[in-house]
Amino acid sequence: MTENVYWNELAITKRHRQKLHGHKSLILWLTGLSGSGKSTIANSLEQKLHEQGVSTYLLDGDHLRHGLNNDLGFSPEDRRENIRRVGETAKLFVDSGIVVIATFVSPYRNDRQLVRALVQPDEFLEIFIKCSLETCEHRDPKGLYKKARRDEIREFTGISSPYEEPENPELLVESERFSPTECSEQIMTYLKTKSILDLT
Amino acid sequence: MTENVYWNELAITKRHRQKLHGHKSLILWLTGLSGSGKSTIANSLEQKLHEQGVSTYLLDGDHLRHGLNNDLGFSPEDRRENIRRVGETAKLFVDSGIVVIATFVSPYRNDRQLVRALVQPDEFLEIFIKCSLETCEHRDPKGLYKKARRDEIREFTGISSPYEEPENPELLVESERFSPTECSEQIMTYLKTKSILDLT
Repeated sequence: MTENVYWNELAITKRHRQKLHGHKSLILWLTGLSGSGKSTIANSLEQKLHEQGVSTYLLDGDHLRHGLNNDLGFSPEDRRENIRRVGETAKLFVDSGIVVIATFVSPYRNDRQLVRALVQPDEFLEIFIKCSLETCEHRDPKGLYKKARRDEIREFTGISSPYEEPENPELLVESERFSPTECSEQIMTYLKTKSILDLT
Repeated sequence: MTENVYWNELAITKRHRQKLHGHKSLILWLTGLSGSGKSTIANSLEQKLHEQGVSTYLLDGDHLRHGLNNDLGFSPEDRRENIRRVGETAKLFVDSGIVVIATFVSPYRNDRQLVRALVQPDEFLEIFIKCSLETCEHRDPKGLYKKARRDEIREFTGISSPYEEPENPELLVESERFSPTECSEQIMTYLKTKSILDLT
């Protein structure tokens, strides 16, 4: 399908855009169960980064399903295509010099690996928002667990569909023990300590 | 498909990101025949904007077909889906505070209208890169017209498939009379004169 499709050399590159913004660009991938606090932590994190002058963008599963991915459902194939497009979109944002905060349940190791493989090794940080199923189900901010228990949602992660925990995430944040603000602070500390956003 | 899909209020908005970058964000949509000079003009334009400190990103038809849209061919349905995804992606970039330069043949008025409708009225500028079919075919930088004439490419815009000229583009640039640099300069002048990128 890519025959007769050409690639032009571009004058302005990722490097130029990173310099303009004053920081490296990469994907901060927040994975975890529904109700683990991904979105709240991401919001708090974006606020902190923005205050420091970092160009950010938040890619959110629910948000994208209203636009780019509004033709996709929740079958295994559609979930895979959902993640594929999310990954390709996140890659474009990294190329544009922006720090992408991506919040997706992304229950399958393979899918997360697929996104990681799209960008450079230092452009993808897997951040595991760890919270027990019990707590997530107790919180149930969107009432989805109740529906899943009543079988009104099929293949719901944690109930009727597996969540494969990250084996070796760059960072693990325990959202059961710490508040969302504390969690985002931990991520900020990690980014600073490791000089993750510094241009070299 | 969007049942059980929720939308969270975000702390950092488009407005915040535009302020950080120091300018409005919008889509500069370059439409025109293959060989009309869209990509060359877009490259020159991005360079000029970048030099002025504008956060830019170039979305290019060929480029996207290597990634996000690599599952799509050239049938009418696939072309439509291609443009839909491009539009949704461009919208995300506008939301992220970036000036998107989009170069797509985009031969159908309806498709361009569809993208325009995705964003605010002042966030989409249609820029018609006008060049006669004769000149484009004579230039034939990718050898595509030759292939199309030999029937090796079907439904090729201008040869075996129509190009619907913009009836009321925000800007018309005659790439047959002016060099790519002159054309991008004309776009820059338009943006400045109309204070298009100024935050109000």
